Amino acid sequence: MGWSLFHPFLCMRIVLDAMGGDHAPAVVVEGAVQAARESGHEIVLVGDEARVRPLLARHIGDGSRSGLPISLVHASQTIEMEEHTLAVKQKKDASLNVGMRLVRDGQADALVSAGNSGAVMAAALFQLGRIHGIGRPALALVYPAAPNRCVLLDIGAVTDPKPEMLMQNALMGAAYAECVLHIARPRVGIVSNGEEADKGSELVRDAYKLLTASPLNFVGNVEGKDIGRGVADVVVTDGFTGNVIIKLSEGLVSFLARYIRQEFTRGVLNKLGLALLLPGAVMMLPGALLLLPSLRRLMRKVDYAEYGGALLLGVEGVVVIAHGRSNARAIANAVRLAAQAVQGNVPGAIKVGLDRLSASRYQPSATRGDELRKSSFVTG
Amino acid sequence: MGWSLFHPFLCMRIVLDAMGGDHAPAVVVEGAVQAARESGHEIVLVGDEARVRPLLARHIGDGSRSGLPISLVHASQTIEMEEHTLAVKQKKDASLNVGMRLVRDGQADALVSAGNSGAVMAAALFQLGRIHGIGRPALALVYPAAPNRCVLLDIGAVTDPKPEMLMQNALMGAAYAECVLHIARPRVGIVSNGEEADKGSELVRDAYKLLTASPLNFVGNVEGKDIGRGVADVVVTDGFTGNVIIKLSEGLVSFLARYIRQEFTRGVLNKLGLALLLPGAVMMLPGALLLLPSLRRLMRKVDYAEYGGALLLGVEGVVVIAHGRSNARAIANAVRLAAQAVQGNVPGAIKVGLDRLSASRYQPSATRGDELRKSSFVTG
Repeated sequence: MGWSLFHPFLCMRIVLDAMGGDHAPAVVVEGAVQAARESGHEIVLVGDEARVRPLLARHIGDGSRSGLPISLVHASQTIEMEEHTLAVKQKKDASLNVGMRLVRDGQADALVSAGNSGAVMAAALFQLGRIHGIGRPALALVYPAAPNRCVLLDIGAVTDPKPEMLMQNALMGAAYAECVLHIARPRVGIVSNGEEADKGSELVRDAYKLLTASPLNFVGNVEGKDIGRGVADVVVTDGFTGNVIIKLSEGLVSFLARYIRQEFTRGVLNKLGLALLLPGAVMMLPGALLLLPSLRRLMRKVDYAEYGGALLLGVEGVVVIAHGRSNARAIANAVRLAAQAVQGNVPGAIKVGLDRLSASRYQPSATRGDELRKSSFVTG
Repeated sequence: MGWSLFHPFLCMRIVLDAMGGDHAPAVVVEGAVQAARESGHEIVLVGDEARVRPLLARHIGDGSRSGLPISLVHASQTIEMEEHTLAVKQKKDASLNVGMRLVRDGQADALVSAGNSGAVMAAALFQLGRIHGIGRPALALVYPAAPNRCVLLDIGAVTDPKPEMLMQNALMGAAYAECVLHIARPRVGIVSNGEEADKGSELVRDAYKLLTASPLNFVGNVEGKDIGRGVADVVVTDGFTGNVIIKLSEGLVSFLARYIRQEFTRGVLNKLGLALLLPGAVMMLPGALLLLPSLRRLMRKVDYAEYGGALLLGVEGVVVIAHGRSNARAIANAVRLAAQAVQGNVPGAIKVGLDRLSASRYQPSATRGDELRKSSFVTG
């Protein structure tokens, strides 16, 4: 492997599930080429060789002369996007299972898939297993539609978590924020229907108490309007609410962008109809030229292709789930996110966090132990 | 009362809680004047006479010559915005309680308040009572940030409802859509984290079954991205999720509007810096003139001042809760919403819906009764 000349960190080997995603395998192969070219990381495509090899050849020929570090591992089975999660148990040789085993056996550093997210989570649990002490994994995303970056989780792994799971999500989200976004001592908030401590569902009020007692930098409730407004670096919620938040944000942004584009066009037409036909149109041009790139920047800000995907936290390895509709750029960005999570050692940071948490829990008994020692000193 | 010359419906008498809202009583009085002028409805301001009378005099003098149908009822106590809901029980002569009693005793048709929403709900329950058969009231809002109108509920009354309450919310939301938005046989959906029937939290999956078996026009799960996209006229959720949806939408729209304004300004400055300084600026003007009204229209679309407020459903009367930050226009729009709900007889429609629901439930036993009769005919 060795050091890349262009990147100040160790080159990694990232598994790409060639068969996952609405436009697989073509788009995944394209993304692999883009990722290898841009990042210098070694990409291991896992999937049906008969379908993947010709696609790859189209991009890099037989591979020997392209110099791109892309290899191919055959997997005889595929889990379809609509297939039930149980298929993961049945299809032992599915690309997802083969890929996860490469990560488990240390032959690769991380796995990226744009496949059925339920299946990816099941395969990760099945092949990699949970981190010892973690109740259930969580899916975490850097919330895109906001001025300040923050990690939002869980966005869909567990719809009915227990309060303890929300606290573990907080811990895992903090590890993500520290190791990947490089935020020191990240502020953790919990989604609620009001700022005050007594607001929230029963679940949220119970988790609030656990978070207050934890060693995390807990800053309290975060209302819907404040997500990504800089009040917290990690925003914790259950997988049901998190999923609604992400999908509502995506929907709203695309609606508003369309709305503004319509309004603008209508405005231009109105003005045109009014009077100075041709001179008017010429006068409009700079406005239009100005507005369009701005809209494009906005759309890019919330485009799943840009944020790379969600990090699956709580399993023994780095797994990134990209959007099912991913294009090649989204795949390449997901590879970049996976590499950052490996470099930052997110699973390791979660373990350290768990140790700190259990140490803080034993604090009272340790104090009692001190008292016991003192009293025995007095009596001794 | 008689018929208004300007409105094709009976004039109503609407109570306005003069003391409710961040800018009460000044803004509420201003809103009362605006509502009386525009709607022709009679407005009964309830509050501290010593504070309200002078404010009113500023707008309409002693009232005798203005011709505006505004009257004043004194209430010696006020429930502050931050006060605990329990205050409603203690302050019997609070403006909210006095106003609710006017509605209860048939001296007014509806009540509008921009006060502490917990207090308004408590006063409504306390003075008006629940509609027989309704488990808990719900707060319903016409979702503003979308191309298609739909009623979203509950947006904050009950954070941990039972599945039966979600079904009753569906019924009450359908009554709202029918009577106020005039949508025949409204399509009802439930917020979930996926379209498929097996998606959702335990609560949602249980409510899904009840809704499928009900006589309502149930169309299934609605994802976050599809709220207000025309897939359902009534979107049901729990008060926790509904509150997050509304606040996230408000927050996102104001963020995006700010973002676009910034981008635009930055664009203008960039271009200015580039070359044709003054001519460039002149060229920019039409674009700016075009963009600003479009942005303003967008902001108005999601402005709480425009949608008037939330309708409290499930109590024996019409109660509208306006945004705490309401300005005079918001108050006047809330009065208009209250009048529409009275005219459409929303509480009556809810009762009809409940009857239909329980009739559909007795259907199986009625069938069994028929069979019993048949068998006795055979044996008889």
